[in-house]
Amino acid sequence: MTDVSDIAEDALRVVPLGGLGEIGRNMMVYETADDMVIVDAGLLFPSDDMHGVDYIIPDATYVLERRDKLRGYLITHGHEDHIGALRFLIPQLQAPIYAAPLALGLIQWRLEETGILDARMIEAGSGSVFDFGSITAEFFPVAHSIPDAFGIALRTPAGLVVHTGDFKIDHTPVMSEPTDLQRLAAYGQEGVRLLCSDSTYADKSGVTPSETVVGDALEQILLTAPGRVIIATFASQIARIQQIIDAAEESGRVVFATGRSMEKNIDMSRDLGYVRTDDRRLRPITDLGSAHDENTVIICTGAQGEPMAALSRMATGSHRDVNLKPGDTVVLSSSPIPGNESAVNNTINNLYRRGVDVFSVGSGHEHVHVRGHAAQEELKTVLALTEPQAFVPIHGEYRHLVLHSKLAESMEMAEGERHILLDGDVLELTPERSEVVDQVEAGYVYVDGMNVGGVDRSIIRDRQKLAGDGFLLVAVPVDEESGELSGEIEVAARGFAEMHATNNLKAGASQVARDVLKSRANSNKPVPWDKRERQVQQEVSAYLRRETRQRPMVVVVAVQV
Amino acid sequence: MTDVSDIAEDALRVVPLGGLGEIGRNMMVYETADDMVIVDAGLLFPSDDMHGVDYIIPDATYVLERRDKLRGYLITHGHEDHIGALRFLIPQLQAPIYAAPLALGLIQWRLEETGILDARMIEAGSGSVFDFGSITAEFFPVAHSIPDAFGIALRTPAGLVVHTGDFKIDHTPVMSEPTDLQRLAAYGQEGVRLLCSDSTYADKSGVTPSETVVGDALEQILLTAPGRVIIATFASQIARIQQIIDAAEESGRVVFATGRSMEKNIDMSRDLGYVRTDDRRLRPITDLGSAHDENTVIICTGAQGEPMAALSRMATGSHRDVNLKPGDTVVLSSSPIPGNESAVNNTINNLYRRGVDVFSVGSGHEHVHVRGHAAQEELKTVLALTEPQAFVPIHGEYRHLVLHSKLAESMEMAEGERHILLDGDVLELTPERSEVVDQVEAGYVYVDGMNVGGVDRSIIRDRQKLAGDGFLLVAVPVDEESGELSGEIEVAARGFAEMHATNNLKAGASQVARDVLKSRANSNKPVPWDKRERQVQQEVSAYLRRETRQRPMVVVVAVQV
Repeated sequence: MTDVSDIAEDALRVVPLGGLGEIGRNMMVYETADDMVIVDAGLLFPSDDMHGVDYIIPDATYVLERRDKLRGYLITHGHEDHIGALRFLIPQLQAPIYAAPLALGLIQWRLEETGILDARMIEAGSGSVFDFGSITAEFFPVAHSIPDAFGIALRTPAGLVVHTGDFKIDHTPVMSEPTDLQRLAAYGQEGVRLLCSDSTYADKSGVTPSETVVGDALEQILLTAPGRVIIATFASQIARIQQIIDAAEESGRVVFATGRSMEKNIDMSRDLGYVRTDDRRLRPITDLGSAHDENTVIICTGAQGEPMAALSRMATGSHRDVNLKPGDTVVLSSSPIPGNESAVNNTINNLYRRGVDVFSVGSGHEHVHVRGHAAQEELKTVLALTEPQAFVPIHGEYRHLVLHSKLAESMEMAEGERHILLDGDVLELTPERSEVVDQVEAGYVYVDGMNVGGVDRSIIRDRQKLAGDGFLLVAVPVDEESGELSGEIEVAARGFAEMHATNNLKAGASQVARDVLKSRANSNKPVPWDKRERQVQQEVSAYLRRETRQRPMVVVVAVQV
Repeated sequence: MTDVSDIAEDALRVVPLGGLGEIGRNMMVYETADDMVIVDAGLLFPSDDMHGVDYIIPDATYVLERRDKLRGYLITHGHEDHIGALRFLIPQLQAPIYAAPLALGLIQWRLEETGILDARMIEAGSGSVFDFGSITAEFFPVAHSIPDAFGIALRTPAGLVVHTGDFKIDHTPVMSEPTDLQRLAAYGQEGVRLLCSDSTYADKSGVTPSETVVGDALEQILLTAPGRVIIATFASQIARIQQIIDAAEESGRVVFATGRSMEKNIDMSRDLGYVRTDDRRLRPITDLGSAHDENTVIICTGAQGEPMAALSRMATGSHRDVNLKPGDTVVLSSSPIPGNESAVNNTINNLYRRGVDVFSVGSGHEHVHVRGHAAQEELKTVLALTEPQAFVPIHGEYRHLVLHSKLAESMEMAEGERHILLDGDVLELTPERSEVVDQVEAGYVYVDGMNVGGVDRSIIRDRQKLAGDGFLLVAVPVDEESGELSGEIEVAARGFAEMHATNNLKAGASQVARDVLKSRANSNKPVPWDKRERQVQQEVSAYLRRETRQRPMVVVVAVQV
């Protein structure tokens, strides 16, 4: 552990606790001798082989050990991978939350769901400046796939740090302000000690198109589709939702929304003034049928193929209100997040089975979605405007960080001070130098339901083993007094393929266990039960491997009689 | 079951038993009143949630019930999804195998591995005609991502059927003949009763580039890379391998091959005369180091991120012969098969961690790979040349079949006789009409190791449940004579998160079980044990759900004492 007293008065420590080397779970610590702020506190959705884990959040041990210095959480925008860990962190690490109104609304929703009612929340906006002692933070607007997104400039003893958060350069965003290039240029003039910039799409050449492109494409579909149009997108795509409402107006359609987070987000966005419409244009899904098919558009969740979301339910014919039929047109206004491709394709197959038309990015309808992150030319623009002395690519898998660093190298930027950090690396900057001085714990914390840290690696390893070959159980009755076998050994199995085919293996396993216990009983000194249990476990495992070439988990249980 | 006697003398039945509605596991039955041939017999690699399953093969019950009519297996090309089921089918369904030399070589390798030494194999080539009584089969060349690929034209009592197999229209293939458009036109002239055509990339607009494009791109890399170049591709990409060897010659590099199937395929292809090189140009991987880095190219397996393949081992530093280092360039000469994206990205991340340069389709180096299947304009060309009366899109997920059918519709082809078949549909054609007359069993047969059908759905369901929340075991000692509880109930668990946190649940579960058994013991008539077991199982499950909101599998075992 790095000692707090190590930090010099003119130094800044930058400690990523999540989001570097892996998408999601974004969390960055900025720390001086006296103060500490956290930028974003997000969660990560687990991959399929992390059985039974609902979320992964950053390990906040580093912050906990320095909790007295924590001055606040600075939140760039309201996506779950930037705010989702707050509900797990706030109970142990209280500090005010600084964020723009939409992000605050989303945070509040999640905190209230979790029963946290006393968090201190402070509204931020374009140009807001907050003073945290040796650090001041200034919010500057960026364009992203959710409105009210901000980058944060931190003035520190080591110099000015520009942290972009997620962004793209969209000069014509549909909602909120464009990325403030003037402001970035001014930071460059002032002198940027460190730029931390979004690398999510550092592998994409060119530029990301403007959100307005999508509006035109959707309007065209709403104008020409013969029947109902169903549009699936992220519930947080508030600008997209507004564009759908606007296109519905143009084409004389009524909008019906379905999906819990979609309905909730639309309500909140209307309350906060982001989404503008009226109750004749936007109606509850239960009113579906009150408009003719050709005057209907349904907006829903499930564009990532999530099995319980509205679109998947429609695709499998199990949605309560929407029964798809030939003549319907379904638009997937999103592109699959890496890892979700099969789920999305599966949903599309099911949609076609229902006889509907499907429009998606993958089938030649490119403009029904645009990405939310900057591509290479935009990243270069930000590097050129800020002219940073030091550079840390953030938000991305390792390959994205490397490619972003290569971009900076190609522009001869941050010569000698380009750092590819991974979670847990401690970068220390002074006005003169920057170097990685330590590596702290920044592993996964697994959340199963609300049970933070209740799932550890050994449990996931057990589940992986169980998933592969199932288990075989050997229940041994043991005499309470003598400690010896006293009755019939019982063998049971689940998820073990061979057991299904033959009972011989059961008898064989039982015999192996009996032999082990008998040979032990004949030895001179008594053998402790846990040792015998391990012996039975090993011998039965070896027997099954020999007989079946499979490796089920073998569990031995002694029953006292 | 459809009765054999149902088939009229002028009729043909077309029965897909795999590969329609899902990629892989391709198998198509063509059957007349007297004869039956099978076109392709492939396997499918399971998705991640089919725990412990190695392969999925077609259910051949339909053929088994008509085994006397089976005249042969006609194999279009040597990919596993077209030949992989033969080693499981041949033991129960013997018939001669007709295929081109390379496919025969690959089939023979797999059969011999399985211990099948007596299969009858008959060599086919361009224009080969085989007579099966009421059906004759003619092989015509097509271009694909493996040499020696063929389509098959079947002359039947119902008319001429053209079955393309996997193909693309490559006018300048590197190896073997181009897709024979003249031949397809001649079939069109003769009159095509039914076209069955490859739909794998029916969602891609335009045309698929020629394989020669890749050769140019790879040569450029070999000429300019500063150090060693490592190229990963499919072992069956024999033409790609030849292009790498040719480019190595141009750039003065020596080729080292690693990966079991890569080495095996290169040996076989050299023996059969497909790959041309000499022993100075192509050397065993154990000679690595005998050439300078700038004169070295390594060709290997693992381009799909398969964890045990050569590239993944290099990426994690666990390859026996190749130790990656800065200055090396790694080329992924393939694109991820849907579902493999995360594994491929993971491999790329690991490669960057070793400091090497990475070239892949996803990072702006488009031409290091081309697809092996026809895109929309090529599919339309085949429809235009053959002018089929009836059309069945084959090879693809449901969405591909629909899109391919829409292409035919847009060309006003096969008006009224476009059938989207799924596995198990029985299409009957006569010279006058075509209709789906039946639906037969065509489900999955799971193979675990060599254990065909040893894994059934209930076992996979068990494994899925175990993977989610683990299991809790209740072992109950029962008096042999009275049938009553006789000793301590023992509770154990694995993969169940909550159990890790507290022993209270164990005690609680044990108490619930005891209560159930006691209340039963007090009732008047004896309750059979299996009923009590079920009762314990239900009550303990309900208890755990209440206490933890999780649903582990609960297993109750009685131990006789």
